[in-house]
Amino acid sequence: MSSFTPTDHVLMAQALRLAERGLFTTQPNPRVGCVIAHGDEVVGEGFHPRAGEPHAEVFALRAAGERARGATAYVTLEPCAHHGRTPPCADALVAAGVSRVVVAAEDPFPQVAGRGLGKLRDAGIAVDIGLMREASRALNVGFFSRIERNRPWVRVKLAMSLDGRTALANGESKWITGEAARADVQRWRARSSAILAGSGTVLADDPRLTARIDQPFAPPLRVVLDRQLRTPAGSHVLDGSAPTLLLHAEGAAVPAHLQDVDRAVVPAADGGLDLAATLTLLAARGCNELHVEAGPTLCGALLAAGLADELLLYVAPLLLGDAARPLLQLPLLQDMGARWNLRVLDQRMLGQDLRLILRPA
Amino acid sequence: MSSFTPTDHVLMAQALRLAERGLFTTQPNPRVGCVIAHGDEVVGEGFHPRAGEPHAEVFALRAAGERARGATAYVTLEPCAHHGRTPPCADALVAAGVSRVVVAAEDPFPQVAGRGLGKLRDAGIAVDIGLMREASRALNVGFFSRIERNRPWVRVKLAMSLDGRTALANGESKWITGEAARADVQRWRARSSAILAGSGTVLADDPRLTARIDQPFAPPLRVVLDRQLRTPAGSHVLDGSAPTLLLHAEGAAVPAHLQDVDRAVVPAADGGLDLAATLTLLAARGCNELHVEAGPTLCGALLAAGLADELLLYVAPLLLGDAARPLLQLPLLQDMGARWNLRVLDQRMLGQDLRLILRPA
Repeated sequence: MSSFTPTDHVLMAQALRLAERGLFTTQPNPRVGCVIAHGDEVVGEGFHPRAGEPHAEVFALRAAGERARGATAYVTLEPCAHHGRTPPCADALVAAGVSRVVVAAEDPFPQVAGRGLGKLRDAGIAVDIGLMREASRALNVGFFSRIERNRPWVRVKLAMSLDGRTALANGESKWITGEAARADVQRWRARSSAILAGSGTVLADDPRLTARIDQPFAPPLRVVLDRQLRTPAGSHVLDGSAPTLLLHAEGAAVPAHLQDVDRAVVPAADGGLDLAATLTLLAARGCNELHVEAGPTLCGALLAAGLADELLLYVAPLLLGDAARPLLQLPLLQDMGARWNLRVLDQRMLGQDLRLILRPA
Repeated sequence: MSSFTPTDHVLMAQALRLAERGLFTTQPNPRVGCVIAHGDEVVGEGFHPRAGEPHAEVFALRAAGERARGATAYVTLEPCAHHGRTPPCADALVAAGVSRVVVAAEDPFPQVAGRGLGKLRDAGIAVDIGLMREASRALNVGFFSRIERNRPWVRVKLAMSLDGRTALANGESKWITGEAARADVQRWRARSSAILAGSGTVLADDPRLTARIDQPFAPPLRVVLDRQLRTPAGSHVLDGSAPTLLLHAEGAAVPAHLQDVDRAVVPAADGGLDLAATLTLLAARGCNELHVEAGPTLCGALLAAGLADELLLYVAPLLLGDAARPLLQLPLLQDMGARWNLRVLDQRMLGQDLRLILRPA
């Protein structure tokens, strides 16, 4: 690996902050930022705002103009080498005469991987790779998951009381968490490509499965695992306020009110739908981050199958007692060796609630 | 309230740190520290180490010697005015010729309250009260609870998985939390006057109910709520390594192996023992902080009765599933308005475990 200067670190961090500005909008593309500089003098900045619009490098090169010549370009993801909806950024960097390109993470996309870097090197440009690679990959965790694993990054959102309960025995669950936690959930929804629920949740709670934040975002696809197509007419998920996809089993009867709704068939499994196949299908539809807001059965099944990549767990400082509903339905454990171990990535207070981000250990 | 100088704050904070050195040993007395100074020049320090030994002021006056004359004494608790096991500290401060006494918290003890301050004022000494009062009261939360409320400060320790489970369905519960959390529990035990468990826990787990820390401490009284005197011969709580008290119902037959064990009768209530009466009894025995390590029934009963003052909750980053044992048995809730609301006083990571300190809201 190359050794990077303090200025390299500062400017790549700046490129990452630019990339973050696409957090809610680049879907299905990655979030990418670019800074062009002579030494520590920045002459151009850019980020990719949304699919179909130019890449980060193009905006930065435009801003730099003639000053790009002999400059260093900091890019959070390997510049593209293929003609997609826009011309290749590697060619643009060569044409602009930059003398060095610093890249955080290699593009995992088969049409790009390594070819962007090769084009630059062939043109005599110094190329350094790997500065803040993990930060760039973390910002695009869903994009990398989709390309590298052929499935979305699955983030399971759960809200519970201190004693691990999500609702009273009678089903009442409103306002377990406070306002700050609920606002935070909206941001996680908005950055996701899709929001997944089971038909049981749709029948019981009639959720909107939309995001409500104060800035532009690409509306996540609402996905309902609805084996028998039970989603009732008049459900919020059918209100047209965001795209909806119903996944069902082969041969499910399609009621009249679902004739015009986007539907797809997924193999059945264990009394439900095959979850791995579901994720493959969603990846094929460009789903990077999948936000799951489902009940204890579906959430538990994702965890038990090893398909949950991250838990977003809100803990409200209250007790509901042992008669209340459990957080997760998981198979009976016979010994502690079989327990599901996680590790805490982040823990913070949001108002009076605690938020934990966890991943399988 | 008087206005205090920055030097006053610094020196009272120093007196509080001295007081903390008695955290594990002063039982049943409060933790008290004293600093004697001219301006910001400290001429004497002291703290109360254990019952029967001199109070903080005596050590500080001894260290100051003649330099106490004209000095300011900072004491975290009102100096005593009565002849107990030691002569009154108020008299000693007068005799030493200090010109000002700054006190954090008034002594709530009926034989002292206000009389110590009165003695000082009568001798022409300037007396200022209330500097860092809450910190001093917090350090002695159990002492104040016992004197002011006639019951100990009840701290309920719980350890659970992320999904609010304390043990597998088969009862296995070993090593849910990690080493750092378990070491932390030992310190909470050691600072307590007593450790409480139910006979169910004694029968199922045979706990030691002792503290294991690397410094001197007054061994907490082991208290077992044992309505029918079921504690079996050979139980760890009968091993003589620390004092033990069995609380039972009127008329319980006393088996031979319990004849010589300290016992006391508590009124029966709701199929168990009257918890409020239990706390009154323990207060009468000098119990300041009561550390509860019991099962979901007893812990739930304390909470439901409003007798749990604090929850010390360790959360291990693992999942045990909905078949595992619940954290607390609480009465069935019919609506969210009846839920038990708590507030988070402190949250931190201990190794990979999370520790929350909570109090009823």
